[in-house]
Amino acid sequence: MQNLTRTYEGKKVLITGGLGFIGSNLAHRLVELGSRVTIVDSLIPDYGGNLFNLSGIEGQLRINIADIRDKFGMLHLAQKQDYIFNLAGQVSHLDSVEDPITDLEINCRAQVNLLEACRRSNPTVKIVYASTRQVYGRPKYLPVDEDHPVEPVDPNGINKMAGEYYHLLYSRLYGLNACSLRLTNTYGPRMRVRDARQTFIGWWFRQIQEGDPIRVFGTGKQLRDLNYIEDVVDAFLLVASTPECVGHFFNLGAEAVTLHDLAELLVKANGTGKVEIVPFPEDRKNIDIGDFHGNYQKLKSFTGWQPRVMLADGLKRTIDYYRRYAEHYW
Amino acid sequence: MQNLTRTYEGKKVLITGGLGFIGSNLAHRLVELGSRVTIVDSLIPDYGGNLFNLSGIEGQLRINIADIRDKFGMLHLAQKQDYIFNLAGQVSHLDSVEDPITDLEINCRAQVNLLEACRRSNPTVKIVYASTRQVYGRPKYLPVDEDHPVEPVDPNGINKMAGEYYHLLYSRLYGLNACSLRLTNTYGPRMRVRDARQTFIGWWFRQIQEGDPIRVFGTGKQLRDLNYIEDVVDAFLLVASTPECVGHFFNLGAEAVTLHDLAELLVKANGTGKVEIVPFPEDRKNIDIGDFHGNYQKLKSFTGWQPRVMLADGLKRTIDYYRRYAEHYW
Repeated sequence: MQNLTRTYEGKKVLITGGLGFIGSNLAHRLVELGSRVTIVDSLIPDYGGNLFNLSGIEGQLRINIADIRDKFGMLHLAQKQDYIFNLAGQVSHLDSVEDPITDLEINCRAQVNLLEACRRSNPTVKIVYASTRQVYGRPKYLPVDEDHPVEPVDPNGINKMAGEYYHLLYSRLYGLNACSLRLTNTYGPRMRVRDARQTFIGWWFRQIQEGDPIRVFGTGKQLRDLNYIEDVVDAFLLVASTPECVGHFFNLGAEAVTLHDLAELLVKANGTGKVEIVPFPEDRKNIDIGDFHGNYQKLKSFTGWQPRVMLADGLKRTIDYYRRYAEHYW
Repeated sequence: MQNLTRTYEGKKVLITGGLGFIGSNLAHRLVELGSRVTIVDSLIPDYGGNLFNLSGIEGQLRINIADIRDKFGMLHLAQKQDYIFNLAGQVSHLDSVEDPITDLEINCRAQVNLLEACRRSNPTVKIVYASTRQVYGRPKYLPVDEDHPVEPVDPNGINKMAGEYYHLLYSRLYGLNACSLRLTNTYGPRMRVRDARQTFIGWWFRQIQEGDPIRVFGTGKQLRDLNYIEDVVDAFLLVASTPECVGHFFNLGAEAVTLHDLAELLVKANGTGKVEIVPFPEDRKNIDIGDFHGNYQKLKSFTGWQPRVMLADGLKRTIDYYRRYAEHYW
C-alpha cells in the first residue's frame, strides 16, 4: 500500500458532493493527510448534503455551495486542482423513475460539462468518478466482475453509466487522468438515514435506533455486499494516486450476506431489536435487481485494495455514531 | 415474412427524422402500404433532412417541421399514433466530439421526453428506435453479436446507447412496446452525400460521380458491412409488427467487405473511377473502431429478416439515383 500522506499532503483537492456521505468522509481523511480541500455541494434537500458532516474540520477547508449543473462555476472551481473526487449526484433510484430528466441533467449532462472544464482548463488533473453497481442491472452471474454486461434497470443506472463512460472516453480522447469506481452498498457514519429514498441500510440504522422493527422486503434471502465507509475512502485515495488506474473502471465489493442475516447482525450489534419479513412494495419491485455481490479482484490487483473493516465492527461503529449525533440526521 | 400491407394499411405512423435518409425511405414505403404518415423533422442544417427526399409523396402525408427537443410539440405529435419510427438524431461522430452537449440533448434528453410523452398519452404505441453499431465501440470479436460488450468510443456512441437503454427500460417499467435496431452502415438513395460528416460511403458516391478519386483511409483492409436502404426499411417494418421484438435490441448486418474492395466495387458499378489509399486524418484516428461486421441472426430468428439486395446491385442503384438527382444533394 502507498504512503498516502506523501501523495496527498499539500495537494489541492476538489470534492463534488462533499457534504454528502462519502464526500464528507473523504474530506475528513484528506484534511488529516494535509490536503488543501475544496468542497462543492448543492445542498439540494434530501440529496444527502449535511453541513454537520464537516463538523470539526470546517475551518480547515473551503466550502463552496454550488450546483454541478452550474457550468461556469464548475469551470472556475475545476481549475488548479490536483485531484477531483467526483461524487456529486442524484442517487435515489425511485426519484429517477419519477423524474428522469433531473437525474439526467445531474448525472449525465453536468458530468460532461465538468469534463469539458477539465479538458480546457486543467487537463492534467486526476479525477475519480463515483459510479455504481446499478449499471449492471440484474446480475447474470455472481460475483459480478467488470466483464459483466451493463443493463441498468432504472433511469439512474442509465445516467450514471453514461456519466462513467464519459469519464473513460475523455481519458481516451484527451488524456484526462480519469477512472471510475463502481460502488456497491456503502454504509457508515455520516450517511443519510432520514428515510429509505437512497439506501435501505441507512433507513435500517434509524429504525433500529428508534426501536422499530427492521423490515426486510421479499424473502430476506437476497444477497448483498456492503463496504464500510473507511474502506471506500481508501479505494478513492488509492485509485487516484495509481497511474495504471487511468481509463479503467473498478468494482468494489465484499463477502456476500443475505438481507435477513444482515438485519440480524444489526440487531446483534445494537444489543436489541426485531426483524420482520414483509412483501416487496409495488414501486420497488420493478427496479429491484435480485442478488448482488461484486468481485473486486481487479481493484485489488491494481492497487492492493481490499475491504478491511468487518461487517460486525462497521455496524457497531455506525450505530455508535448515530446514537451520539442522532439530532443532526433524523 | 408478414403481409406488411395488412399490418400498416390505414395505420397512423409517426416518423421522427422523416426528412432524413432512412426516415424518408421509410415514409415512401409506408405511403405505398397505405399508412397515414406524419413526418417530424427539424431541418437542422447538415443533419440530413432534405425536403426533396419526399418528392412525389408530399401530398400523401403530413410534414411537421419541429425539433424533437421541443417537449410539448412532441407530446402532441406522439398522441394517437399506432407506430413511431424514432430516427431523429445527431449522427455525426465528429460533431459529437466538438459539441457533446448538443449531441446529448438530442440523442439522450429528447428521447426521454418522447418516451415520457408516450408513457403518459399513448402507452400502447409501437416504437422502434434507430440505434447504431457505434455503441459497441472497437469490436473484441467478429462478427459482433448482441452479447458483445458496449464500449462507445465517442460521445455520440454514449448518447445513442443511453437513448436506446431508455427505450428498453420504458418497455420494461411501463409496458411501452419499444425495441431498437443497431444499424450498421446504411447506404442508398436519399442519403446525405454533401460531405463526409456523417458517413464515408455517402461522400464516396459524390466523389466518384464528380470524377474525384475515392480516398480510403489507413490500410484499406478494414472490414465493414453495409445494408442497402430497402433492407433496412424492411427491418424497421418487421420489428415494429412482431410483438416478440418488444424490449429487445437487434443488430443489422451483412457480409463483410474490406474498404478497399468496396471502393473497387463502387468504381466497377460506376464504370470508371480511381481509388487512393491515404493516411488516416488525425481527428478520425481516435474514434475509428477498426474492423466491424455485425451478426444479425437474432433479428433473423425473430422476424425472418435478412439482407436481400446484393452490394453490387445496391451500389449501382444508388449511383443511378444520384446521377439523376445530383442537384438536390450536392
